[in-house]
Formats: sequence, C-alpha cells, structure tokens
Amino acid sequence: MALTERTLLGPGPSNPYPEATAGLSAPLLGHLDPEFIGLLERTCDRLRAVWGTANPLTLPLSGTGSIGMEAAFANTVRRGDVAVIAVNGLFGARMCEVAARYGAEVVRVDHAWGEPVDVERVLAAHPAPAIVAAVHAETSTGVRSDIAALGAALRERSPEALLLADCVTSLGGTEIALDAWGVDIAYSGTQKCLGVAPGLAPFSFSERAWQRRVTAPPIWYLDLGLLGAYVRGGPGGRTYHHTAPVAMIASLDAALERIAEEGVDAVAERHRAAGRRLQEGLVEMGLELFAAEGHRLPQLTTVRVPGDVDSAKVREQLLTEYGIEIGAGAGEYASSVWRIGLMGHNARMDRAELVLGALRRVLRR
Amino acid sequence: MALTERTLLGPGPSNPYPEATAGLSAPLLGHLDPEFIGLLERTCDRLRAVWGTANPLTLPLSGTGSIGMEAAFANTVRRGDVAVIAVNGLFGARMCEVAARYGAEVVRVDHAWGEPVDVERVLAAHPAPAIVAAVHAETSTGVRSDIAALGAALRERSPEALLLADCVTSLGGTEIALDAWGVDIAYSGTQKCLGVAPGLAPFSFSERAWQRRVTAPPIWYLDLGLLGAYVRGGPGGRTYHHTAPVAMIASLDAALERIAEEGVDAVAERHRAAGRRLQEGLVEMGLELFAAEGHRLPQLTTVRVPGDVDSAKVREQLLTEYGIEIGAGAGEYASSVWRIGLMGHNARMDRAELVLGALRRVLRR
Repeated sequence: MALTERTLLGPGPSNPYPEATAGLSAPLLGHLDPEFIGLLERTCDRLRAVWGTANPLTLPLSGTGSIGMEAAFANTVRRGDVAVIAVNGLFGARMCEVAARYGAEVVRVDHAWGEPVDVERVLAAHPAPAIVAAVHAETSTGVRSDIAALGAALRERSPEALLLADCVTSLGGTEIALDAWGVDIAYSGTQKCLGVAPGLAPFSFSERAWQRRVTAPPIWYLDLGLLGAYVRGGPGGRTYHHTAPVAMIASLDAALERIAEEGVDAVAERHRAAGRRLQEGLVEMGLELFAAEGHRLPQLTTVRVPGDVDSAKVREQLLTEYGIEIGAGAGEYASSVWRIGLMGHNARMDRAELVLGALRRVLRR
Repeated sequence: MALTERTLLGPGPSNPYPEATAGLSAPLLGHLDPEFIGLLERTCDRLRAVWGTANPLTLPLSGTGSIGMEAAFANTVRRGDVAVIAVNGLFGARMCEVAARYGAEVVRVDHAWGEPVDVERVLAAHPAPAIVAAVHAETSTGVRSDIAALGAALRERSPEALLLADCVTSLGGTEIALDAWGVDIAYSGTQKCLGVAPGLAPFSFSERAWQRRVTAPPIWYLDLGLLGAYVRGGPGGRTYHHTAPVAMIASLDAALERIAEEGVDAVAERHRAAGRRLQEGLVEMGLELFAAEGHRLPQLTTVRVPGDVDSAKVREQLLTEYGIEIGAGAGEYASSVWRIGLMGHNARMDRAELVLGALRRVLRR
C-alpha cells in the first residue's frame, strides 16, 4: 500500500537524506560478510568524526535512540552509585527513571523547562558522584546546554565522575567534541540531524568508562563486553553477538558519507542558518519563542501557541492540507507549545520558508 | 559506495522479498502520524495471523531478534523464579544466560545438538516451574521441536507455568499456532523466513502472561507496560514511549502483506518443497545431513563437512566465485557443519538448484 509523502518538520523523524534512503534498499549483505564488516568499521570511523572522539568503542547500537540511554546506564551503574542528573526537560527526567531501574541513587537537579543546564547547581548537588548526566540538546524544549563547560568544571571538582551526555538531537547538526569536552558516555539517534530513518542509536564510550564498566549487566542485548567483542574484535577474532541490522547500518553509512563530503562544520552552519531564519520568521509573525534566548537549538524550535488558537487543529491542518508534520509540545506543554524541526536533510532555507508560509496561512497572520 | 549483490543462503539474513525492500524506501512517516498508527495496527494484525494468535499484545519490538528473547525474560522473571529451559543448541543455551541475568533459577535440560527437545525430560526436570522455555526452530542445528506436544503436556502437568517459545527461524516459514499450542510468550526476527532485513523482533504475549508480568522490569526500553500503552493505547489514548523504527515496520508490513496474499500455508509448503529438494540433493551428492531425521527444518539445512574438505575455504569460494553466502556451523560444529538457509524469498526451487550446483562444482562431486 502506498504511503503518503510528508514533510517531517516535527521533533523527529526527519526526512532522510536521499543517500540514506538509497542505502536502505542497497543489496543486503550478511552481518558476517567481510564486505559488511568493512562497511561497519567505516561507519564507526565516520561516527567518531561527527562525535569528535577517538573512542575505540564507538558504534551504532541495534535499536532506536532510547536504547542508547538504556545502554549508557546499564553498563555503568552499580547498585547505590550516585548519579547526578540535570533535568531541564522530558529526556533528563527519563534518564532519572532509567538510572533508578539499574539501582542508581539518583540526585535530580531540576531546572525550569526551556532553560539550559546550570553547571554550578549540577556540580553542587553532590560532592562525589559516580556519574553526572545531562542532555546536550533537549528535544522536549529546544534548548542547548553547554556540555563543554560542564565537562571542564567537572574535571576540576570531581575528576573521578563519569560524564554522560544525551546527544540525540545534536549529533550531525551541532558541533560536538566528546574528547575535548571530557564526555565519557554519549548516545544519539539516527532520525534527527543524522538524516536517517529511526532504528539505530549511535553510541560512544571512553576508555575510562570501559575500565569501570559493569561486567555482565542485567541486559544481555546491550552488554558492551559482548558487543565490543563483535565490533572491535579480540585475540580470537570477532565473536558473533546478535545479527546486526545491516540495512539500517548501510543507510547510516551513506548519510555519514554525505555529511563528511559536505563537511561537519558546513552541515552545522546549514542547520544554524535555517533555524535562524525560521525563528526570525516566527517572531515576525508575532509569535513567542519558548526556549531561553541564547540557548536555542537551530535544529529544533519551540514556539508558544497563541492563546486563541487550537494547537491540535493547526497541526492537523498542516498535515492534511500541506503534508507538513510539526510536533506538539512535550509534557505539560503538550497543547501550549509547538516543536518545529529543521534537521538533517530538512535543515534548509526552503523548508524554513515552507513551514513559515503554511503557518502564516493557517493562522491567518 | 555500491554494495555487492549476494544470494544469502546462510542462517539469516536472507534476501528480503522485493516488497519488503520497496517498503524500506517508501516515504517516511512520523511515528505519531495517524497513517503510521494505522499501518502499525495492520502490521500487528498480520503478525497475529502468522503467529496463529489473538493476543492483543502482539507487536514488532524495536531491535533485532535477540531483543525478543531479552523482552521475554525481562518481563516475566522475578528473582528466584524457576525457569526450565530446554537446550538443544546455541539459542537454548543463550536463553539460560539471559534468564539468569534476570535472576531466574535456571534448570537446564541439555540435549545432544541435532536432536529435538524431549518433552518428557523437560517436564520431569522440575515439579513446579514458573516458566518453561524451548526453541521451536534451532538456528544453530536446523532442528524443529514439537512445541504443540510440549504445550499439551505442560497444561496437564504444570498448568500454572508460562510457556515460552523461540520462533526466530520458524515464523513465516513454518505453521505456528501459539494459541492452540498454549504458548504464552513468543518472539522472532524479521531476517529469516519473514523475508525482511534484520532490525525488528516480532513478539507476542498472552493475556495470562500479561496478568503475571513484572511491573517496572530492569530494562525501561522493553517494559511491556510502557510499550503496551503506545501500541494498544489506554484510557487516555496512546502514550509516546520511544520513536518506532518506522521504515523497518513499513517493510515488515509489506512482507506480511505478500505472505498473506500467497497464503501462510502455501508459504510453508514452498519452504518445505525447497528444503526437501536441497536435502535430497545434498544426500545424492554423498553428503551427510546433521539434524535428526524426521525433525529437520526445511528452511535451514545442516550438513556435515566432508573430512577432507576445508570448510571455511569452501564458504569463501562460494562467496567470491558465486556470490552465495552459506553459514558455518555454530559452537563446536563451527568447522564441521555448514548451515544452508532457504528462507522467505529464497525458499524456492531455483535457489535450491543454485546452491546444489555451486557446491557440486566447488566440491568436485
């Protein structure tokens, strides 16, 4: 059955790069085929380039973005470990829930939604945390937090702590430098700025985190000891763990090749330019942006729904009349905020003008 | 970069149905788009048809086949629960490892590899198990076990026990009747007889299992309470859990449509006919089949490597000269057995003749 074409300008998935779509339907290889192993190694190298890391354990996990969060805590938290978690939106809150399931003593540092993470408050929350976690780009609020500053301050204050950064909405759209920032554990999803369908969770784990990892974590599927033996190999060669999602990995590889050819910095600049135009246009229309000024993500804009407007009805009209998907707000902002993404292949001026024009018509502004 | 075309006749992945490949590159929908929700519901319905079940909680989990095993144990095992696990190959052994990680007291019933599960021995292993688990189609040995008989005997002996069946290599290639057989928990993978790329784990959970499920299992990503709220909805409508792998699900839906059009029984018969021809041809060539007679899977044939033959060299020659992938053996049979799959789109007479012809040339028989 034919599916309808949509312009996906919500918080993800975004429309994939054409190269990524072509990669999905390329001839399928076996997961142990030498040609696939070469492709996987190249994909991991290309992931290292967009992450800004030399971590040997950098790979796409076989699940959607959330599985990255799960793997991060499953492989690092021992019962009773103190995890200081910055919460400035839905995904910070989810980290608290996931960490608690693995037995962490969670110290939750709440912020107003729409505000960035306050480095001083996070570091003052506990004198000796095992893990400090924050979201780089909060998908629920459209806010970017300064992970570089958090990393630098953490190294001064609690050099033993592992630093975890959720990069689901930043990877491939915003410059990231895991190694320079001192991030030990990071994960992302493919369906945002990387411009690939949902289904993989890029993941990176520092040697420091590897030395302190949990051996035999509760979850076998995400046991990094076993995964590492397949991805990195070992004295006895590669050990089969589970069948890799080969089509999705070929698609990710193709998108990363496209990003490399354009240049990581140029791609980030393209995201910035498109997001700036969208945010200017929304303000010109008399709308109010939600995220704190100076901390707004260009790839994901949050805007307040005018008081006299039915939020869901506008979204439905955009979908049915223009084929444009934008997102509702998250949590308590479900009907008072819209989320508009210009990510990956959609981080373009024409997409910004398209959604501005359609919104102007629908809102009669 | 162009990938080489292969004929994938190993233990999976197999070459996808053309419809499944087309589904992968269909226009991408958002995971909350009403059109996608309709597609997901249809996919779950079609899964119920191939599983032979009315279980409301029947869905594709967002990971490869192994994640189905993980979800099965994560949502059912409480610390100290007795899990009787039949082991007649690699995947039975893996169930023991996964169950143990969730705190099960594992009662392992070992069988010789290549033999089917002995119902009497399994049931005699413990008087009151919480879970009894077996593999329907052992991917490591090519053996089919009689889950219907196990279910019937279990209902007599330990009616309280939940029955778990690994159907990774059977679903879509062999008739399955979960409800009639009394199976409570079943999982599969898409890359075998369903004829889809790897990346999803079809999963089915009975109402009885649902009533007794673990609430808040260690793993958030596979928490069926949360997943059910997205897939089945609830009083407050559907609750977002994680971004579904929409392209993979569209692909699975297309393959299931193809299977439904051909007819589940006709598809199984096609697998039987192709597998029979392959097994006859191998015997005619003077080779010895590995799996016990009368219990051989048509979709996955295991054959002993002749003593004077270098197993890996033959596989490499098939791959490089003929573009054909067959599998090595598993575990201690790595170099003494080959595994040849005729699954999904490859369950065809021409594929059987192709691999027989190529093997005959390479082995000079």
